[in-house]
Formats: sequence, structure tokens, C-alpha cells
Amino acid sequence: MQRVSYPSFRTVLGEHDVVRVAGANHALGGLLAEEAGFQAVWSSSLEVSASRGVPDASILSMAEYLESAANIQKVLRIPVVADCDTGYGGNLNVAHMVHEFEDAGITAVCIEDKLFPKMNSFVAGGQTLLDTREFASKIVTAKRSQSSDDLFVIARTEALISGLDVDAALERCRVYADSGADAVLVHSKAKSRDQVLGFLERWDFRCPVVIVPTTYPDWHIDDIRAAGVSVVIYANQGLRATVTALRDTYRAVYRHGDSTVVEDSIASVQDVFDLQRLPEWQKLDA
Amino acid sequence: MQRVSYPSFRTVLGEHDVVRVAGANHALGGLLAEEAGFQAVWSSSLEVSASRGVPDASILSMAEYLESAANIQKVLRIPVVADCDTGYGGNLNVAHMVHEFEDAGITAVCIEDKLFPKMNSFVAGGQTLLDTREFASKIVTAKRSQSSDDLFVIARTEALISGLDVDAALERCRVYADSGADAVLVHSKAKSRDQVLGFLERWDFRCPVVIVPTTYPDWHIDDIRAAGVSVVIYANQGLRATVTALRDTYRAVYRHGDSTVVEDSIASVQDVFDLQRLPEWQKLDA
Amino acid sequence: MQRVSYPSFRTVLGEHDVVRVAGANHALGGLLAEEAGFQAVWSSSLEVSASRGVPDASILSMAEYLESAANIQKVLRIPVVADCDTGYGGNLNVAHMVHEFEDAGITAVCIEDKLFPKMNSFVAGGQTLLDTREFASKIVTAKRSQSSDDLFVIARTEALISGLDVDAALERCRVYADSGADAVLVHSKAKSRDQVLGFLERWDFRCPVVIVPTTYPDWHIDDIRAAGVSVVIYANQGLRATVTALRDTYRAVYRHGDSTVVEDSIASVQDVFDLQRLPEWQKLDA
Amino acid sequence: MQRVSYPSFRTVLGEHDVVRVAGANHALGGLLAEEAGFQAVWSSSLEVSASRGVPDASILSMAEYLESAANIQKVLRIPVVADCDTGYGGNLNVAHMVHEFEDAGITAVCIEDKLFPKMNSFVAGGQTLLDTREFASKIVTAKRSQSSDDLFVIARTEALISGLDVDAALERCRVYADSGADAVLVHSKAKSRDQVLGFLERWDFRCPVVIVPTTYPDWHIDDIRAAGVSVVIYANQGLRATVTALRDTYRAVYRHGDSTVVEDSIASVQDVFDLQRLPEWQKLDA
Repeated sequence: MQRVSYPSFRTVLGEHDVVRVAGANHALGGLLAEEAGFQAVWSSSLEVSASRGVPDASILSMAEYLESAANIQKVLRIPVVADCDTGYGGNLNVAHMVHEFEDAGITAVCIEDKLFPKMNSFVAGGQTLLDTREFASKIVTAKRSQSSDDLFVIARTEALISGLDVDAALERCRVYADSGADAVLVHSKAKSRDQVLGFLERWDFRCPVVIVPTTYPDWHIDDIRAAGVSVVIYANQGLRATVTALRDTYRAVYRHGDSTVVEDSIASVQDVFDLQRLPEWQKLDA
Repeated sequence: MQRVSYPSFRTVLGEHDVVRVAGANHALGGLLAEEAGFQAVWSSSLEVSASRGVPDASILSMAEYLESAANIQKVLRIPVVADCDTGYGGNLNVAHMVHEFEDAGITAVCIEDKLFPKMNSFVAGGQTLLDTREFASKIVTAKRSQSSDDLFVIARTEALISGLDVDAALERCRVYADSGADAVLVHSKAKSRDQVLGFLERWDFRCPVVIVPTTYPDWHIDDIRAAGVSVVIYANQGLRATVTALRDTYRAVYRHGDSTVVEDSIASVQDVFDLQRLPEWQKLDA
Repeated sequence: MQRVSYPSFRTVLGEHDVVRVAGANHALGGLLAEEAGFQAVWSSSLEVSASRGVPDASILSMAEYLESAANIQKVLRIPVVADCDTGYGGNLNVAHMVHEFEDAGITAVCIEDKLFPKMNSFVAGGQTLLDTREFASKIVTAKRSQSSDDLFVIARTEALISGLDVDAALERCRVYADSGADAVLVHSKAKSRDQVLGFLERWDFRCPVVIVPTTYPDWHIDDIRAAGVSVVIYANQGLRATVTALRDTYRAVYRHGDSTVVEDSIASVQDVFDLQRLPEWQKLDA
Repeated sequence: MQRVSYPSFRTVLGEHDVVRVAGANHALGGLLAEEAGFQAVWSSSLEVSASRGVPDASILSMAEYLESAANIQKVLRIPVVADCDTGYGGNLNVAHMVHEFEDAGITAVCIEDKLFPKMNSFVAGGQTLLDTREFASKIVTAKRSQSSDDLFVIARTEALISGLDVDAALERCRVYADSGADAVLVHSKAKSRDQVLGFLERWDFRCPVVIVPTTYPDWHIDDIRAAGVSVVIYANQGLRATVTALRDTYRAVYRHGDSTVVEDSIASVQDVFDLQRLPEWQKLDA
């Protein structure tokens, strides 16, 4: 019984006009995203830090994010895209990050152009950008540090998040692409897709574009594709569904005084066993 | 901003006639169990192994289970009860286990009388019991290894799980209690509570009893209390709710082509921030 | 067989006019430092990073340094002083650091006033100081984050390392002491003790002083005591001895073609067993 | 600046008539073994457990041994051979072990035919063998679990260690070779090489033989080669040299009251920087 195998993110991108990616914070979440049809899994720093009960503010260190991404990748037939925040410091940290994530079998990483320590993008305040040239140097460092040509490095600009305009986002992304980024991620927390659309209309597609439509959830995949986007990340819906499910389930069991009240709406123990691939493992002792 | 503090499990047990415990596999789950009113959290080996995508069969090692229990305890105001399987080997492993879990601030551990490596109790087959005296020796070792009188050691018998009868379960539990166990857990996968009730009717309560009503979920807390049970563990309902929530959410987003379809039924990003105690952390930079 | 117990660093400091501390990167090193008579062990970031084969430049993350410090403390009867570099980022990182090191049983931590990511102090270049007020804020944060009054926070100034003079070092240390630091560490890489002596002559001892005489090794403990120093850290001699010993041993075995050549100059396997406290452990199976 | 690359152990074995391997417990040790000329590094469970201050008795779990082996391999140009004790349990544990060590880039693993939990082979008592067929099943499982044909699985018999004779060792090794083992390791703690020579004289070399001449250190590499051995492991001399070096160094510094007494006999800080490859890392910020 071998490990499952998986294609690199670069390969997956070559096979789809739009790659759909779902956020997860553990292997089980990754398995369910794969089951639903997603082509990749986002090892989200918001999800991982929330699962540990601390803010998404560079509090956990690279070791914890790496472990989470690696553990997800180990059981999947689709690639993980690792949310690597700012690269965890300066150029040396970025080089170390590339070494470690490649060693762990991760084929795509994303770094963003904010100062370390960063604050989650949806938090008001604390959104300070790194100088464009310094971030470009991180991208150059990342690409020079990779052992495999397969490694896919996404450069994420927080220009719009920090209050700058589309011009600034475009300028930064051009520099990042020219520094070797395999794709750019243009993040926005506007209530509509207009900012990102504005970006796309003026982008010359010198490299592919990644989006994260958390605050403009009504953007349909067909329209996303038509707008020229290559990768869309549903970054935190799984986490938020988990919060609701756990909150409701724990409350119901506690209030009702027994667990019959939830039995019909939760997976069976056998479902869990199947996700754990128990029958395959049991054959090893046959 | 200090760590939250928490009472020991022994203290909590002294303050409640029945302690209600919910299973979790990460700190976020623990926080939501605490929020719902539970008095303790079960760091479940089924939940932890499932979250890693491997069977609950002693495949993950103590290091991973310890890390999970420790990470849950760090953010809670209620104690964690650590599901420690068989104690991870023989007497030396049990001593090491007690040292490490105590170091991590865990105040209650549970070990069971099956052979290492164990198989999850709800799996048919592979349920081989350890010799009674050998398991009693593990309990003695655990109690002699503790640094604090506070450590609460639960001895779990799998006698009923392995096909033996209530007599056998009683005999084992008497030996375990006399060996120093602070409580006994009598586990059963019967479809009704009758086996466990039979045990309770004949138990002399030389130490408290813990139950895990997974397969007899209709046992109301008032009846559990009346039967003399001191601790009831809802061991895996949270995990099973998570599976359903993630499965439904990922599918819906993938099939609908956007995430508006789930927005109303999942927690907000702000909810997540609150669970991460972001406002308290932000004050550190004020 | 319980864990060994140990006093807090604060307690040790109260019992000695000068506390002598030796650097180590693993529990075995800590045991041998204790055996030699040292009153505490320095979990050195140079030693830990070197043992991992990467520079001492904030490349490893807090998780690795914490694990190393915790593993050393677990087996010792003397306290560990954890070298925590810059506190691993900003104020939030410092708070998290205090939470995690306290959880791991560490009773003394040291943070330094350089920018994150830092470079080892003996490296030419890359020695940029953090603004005094920002570092003072880290000290305030550390002290407010501690759960136990026992935690001892050492504020290390790199003023002399970065090329500033004794006046600057004094000014910074006064601010740090007034911000709550339990001691100040004044580091210097001068070839003589004169810089540090100059500091001591003008220090008003509003809090104790720690020194690290790596580049002025001829400063005798009696003279150190007479100069008013409270803590002296021999930070890396153990690592450097290990390098020489391994280099010589591996070369000798390889060149001679057998290992008789080293047998007389290396510890016996039984020595190793004794350091592992094997006889105590074996009693658990008796 | 990319990770260093390294050949698989299988490749190295194909290029040398005898592969010489040195034990280490951290990356720095591995670097120094490589520097001395060794063709591979043994990630020794005795060394790793001793460095943690606990007996070599299956007390640390797979997670810790894996981490140590992986960290050594990351910085080397030669392959690591991982000492995997008994495979950490039964067949499922062996499969998981192969998955995890392969994921970590390890190209050779060694498992031994003792019961879990094992006791170090040089300890009197506690040396119970696993049934031959059960261990053969572990070898079959290991080979079926590998993802790469490169993985080299060494089957180590403890027959001589447990008091059985050469006939028993031969019989076991034949079964192991026929079950797919890539090599057999015949371990002995006799004071002379005679037992192992007796084995070699009657072995039909259906697969290569590995030896560990700890207690017969006078066996010269030329004679080892002549006897038909393919791999010789100097398993713990590095650890034992470290113990002596640290003991002597700490004592000298403590007793003399300053560290001048050791300065001439220990590596310089610059030596340490070179082993950390600091100049290469610094270029990343140039």
C-alpha cells in the first residue's frame, strides 16, 4: 500500500483553464475538498492559525504552517498550494522556506508583499506593504532556491488591501512577474469584484492571475474564467462551515442532554473510517 | 495578556455530579465545546488520526497525540482529558507518557487494556486484550510516574469491546481501581446501554465510572447521572459534524460555481476573529 | 519514576552571587553541564542552529528553538535560560513566546534589541538595532504576558555589537530595566573585557547584569564576581568542543580503517547508558 | 542557493565495494562525517535517544526519530540510513514508517526482528525476538509500501544478540532476504568478530551483509571487505566522543574559572560559521 501520488500544481494548471482551489487546515479537509472536485487545496494561514486558536498574525511560525501543509499533501491526489504569508521574514527565510516546502513535497507556494509580522488581510489596520524592490528580491530568492523546475511561486500583492489603487497593484504585479513569479495573486476586500475586474482589464497577462473571492462571493466560475483568471481560491469557507457545525452540534448535545438530536445530521463512524482508508490499511495485516 | 488558566480535571470532577466532555481534534473545536457548556474536552485519538487522514490504529505516534492535546489545552479554561490509547507500548512508554503529558499541562489521561498497536474499538476484529496484570502494572507505573497529585488516570477496559461479558469487565475494573486508577471507563459498542447499565448495577463504585455513549446515543444525561456515572464523553460527534459540514460546503461551492450558496449558513470571518481572540491580541500593539 | 524537578532561574540567582551558565543544544549536553557544576544551561540559538546545519540568522523558527529548550529542561535539575533572539518578531510574537516557553517549563528567557531577522552577533554586518522604545515595548509585553511571577526576562543589548559606545549601551539598559527587565545582558565582541568593564563601572545596578565572555575568555570568575556581574554565560564552548571531537573522531576512524584508534579516548557505551538513566528506567519493568 | 543534492543509498552501494557509514544524531554530526569521507550517515536510535536524555528503548516515538533523520539528510551530499528499530509496532506501523521516511527523502531504512518496545542491543536482558514469519511480513509490507524502487530496506537480525547461534541467524536472514530485504544486518555484541565471521563464511550472499563492529572495533576495513561485507556502520563513536568532549570541556571551564583553558583545543566560532555555510547564505542578502 503505497502513498497516493499527485501531480504538481504546475501540471494541474496546464490541464485546466481555471483551477479551483479550496482552503483546508487538516488532511481530512483536504480529502473532502478533493472528493468535491477541487483541483487543489489551499493550506490557509487563517485556517491553520484559527484551528490553533491564535490570530492569523505571524504568531505561529513556519514550522507549524509547514507541518500542516505537508500533512494535507501526504494523503491527497491533488496538489497543495501553501499560503506562506510574507515568506516568514527576509530573503534568508524565503530560501529556507523554499527548501523546506519542497522537501515536504509541496509544489506551489504563495508569498505576499506585506511587512513581517503580517496581520490577516481582512483586519482593519496593520496592513503595511513591503517596498516593491524588497519583495521582488524575495521572489528572485525563492526562484533561485528551488531544486525543481516544478515549484510554482505565487506573488500576492496586498496593494488593494492596504488602501492603494489598481495602478499600484498593477505596477507591483508587473515587477513581481518580471522578477520570476509564476503567477500573481491580486487580493481585495472590497464588497464587489470591481477592483479585481479593473485589475484584470488592464493586466497584460505576462503571467497568470489568482483571485480569492471571499468578500465578493457571487462571482460565478464562468464569469471568473471569462475575465481571464487562472486560479480561484475559496480560502476559508470550509473553516467557517466547521465553526458553525461544531457550534451547533456541541450546543445541541449539551442542551438536549443526549446526542440523538444530532445523529441524523452527522456523518457515521463508518464514513470516518472510509475517509481514513481503513479497509486498505487493514489488508496489511491480512 | 496572559494565557487563560484552567482547573485540573480532578477539581472539575469534584464540582459536578456528572462531568460532560466533548471530543475535539484542534484548539478551535475545544473552544467551541467550552462555549457550549462542556466541562472538559476529550482529545480523541479517533478525531486526531482522522484529521490526519490515517486510521485510528496506533499509526500516529505519541508525539502527534501529545501535540494535539497540548495545543487544545493551551487556549481553554476547562481541562483536557487525553485519550492515550494503550499508553503507547509497555511500562516505560507509560512512564514517558505521564512525564510528557504532565509537562504539557494535561491533568487527565486515559489508557486502555488492549495490545499495542491497537485498532479503533468500533472496528470488527483486532480487539485483543492485554493480560489483566500487565495492564494493572501500567496503571501502577502511571501513578508512580506522576509529578503532581492532580494527575487523573482513567483506566479503560475494552473487555466488552473484545467480546467478553460484564463479569470480565467488572473483574478487570476492580483490579485497575485497586492498582490506583482514579476512574474506570467501561466501553461498549452494543446498540443499547444495557451492557453498561449491567456493569453499573454491579459496580461497587470503589472509583468513579466514565462512559462513551457513541452507539447508545439516546441515554439522557439525567438517566446517566441517576445510574451513577461520573463522566460522560461525547467522543466523536464533533468530528462527524465536521465531515458533513465540509462535505456539504465544498460540494455546494463546487457545484454552484460560487460561494454565495453557503454564505448564510457558515460563520462570518469576524466570528473566526473573535474565536481567535483577536481584539485581545491587538491591544498588545496599541 | 518521576521527572526530575528543578528550581526556577530566579531562585538559583537568589542563592548564588554569580550564576555560571553553560551553552548546550541537546539534553545530553545539558546533563553534562549540570554534572560539571554549572547552575543553569543556556539553550543557545547558535548551538541549536549549528546542530541543524543552518546559520544563526532567525532561519529556524520559534518552534524549533522552543523544542530544543524544552527537551533540555525536561531532564535537568537546574534551570534552562532560553536564548530567544529578538522575540521572533513584534509584540504579538513576544507574548506568544512567553506563553509557549512558560508552558514548556522554562523559567528564564532572553530577548535582544536587534531587528528581526537577526544575524549572529559575531558576524560582521547585519547588526541593526531596533528602536529603543520599540524594544522597551517588547519587554513590557513579555512581563505582562507571563503567568508566573517566577519568569525571569533578560533584556540583551546589542549596542556594542552594532558599533555604538558604552553610553548608548547604558542608556538602552536603563530603559530596559525601567520597562521591567529582570536583568540586562550587555554583549560585546571586543577582544578584551574593557568595553564591558566600562559598562559595569557606570551601571547603577538597578537590575543585575549578565555577560557572555566569548571573545574575552581570560576573565576569571573571581574577577567577574568582583566586577558586579550576576550571571556569566559560556555560550558556545560545548558546541565548539563537539565540532573538534567529531571531526577528529570521524577522521581517525576513517583513516585508520577501524575504530580501535579512538576507543580509549571516548566514553563507553555504559557511560552513555548511565547518562540516559537506564537503571532507573529498567526498574519500571522489574 | 538550492538544497544540496545527494545520491540514494542504493546508488552509493553500487559504487563502492564497502560502504562506510558513521552514526550521528544531528545535522552537524552528519556534516562532519561527510567531511571525513564516510559514504553515508547512520541516524542512530542510540544517539538520538541519548541526545534527548532517555534510554534507547522505544521511548521516543517514530516522529522524533524521523525528524532527526530528516534534519540530517537535508544538509548532506551523502545519504542517510535510518535506524528504525522494530518498525515502531506492527505491519501498519511499518507501512506508515516507509511512507514517512520516503516523504522525508530518506533512501535507506533498517528494521530489526525484536519485539516492540525494544531495548538497546548492548543491554543485558530484554532482548526478545519476534517470530520469524511475523518479521518477514514486516519486510514484505515495507517493500510493498515503498513509492520509489530506490528505497533500500535493511533487515537486521538480533538472533545473536538474543543468545541464539549462527545457525539461527542464518536461517532468519535467508527468510528475510527471500521476503525482499535489500540487505541483512547481522548484529553481535561478542567481544570478537568470530560470530559474525562464522555467519559470513556460511552466508550464500543472496543479498549484501551489513555489520556494526562496536564490540569488535579492531576489525580493519580491508579485512571487512575481504570477508565479503558490503556495509560497515560505526554506529556510536561520534556520540561517545561528544560525551567525553563535553564532559572535559564543561569541567575545565568550571574548575578553571575561565574558558582560556579550552580555547586552543576547541573549534573557532568561524569554523562553526563555515559548517553552517554562512557565506553562501549571506549572498542571498547581497
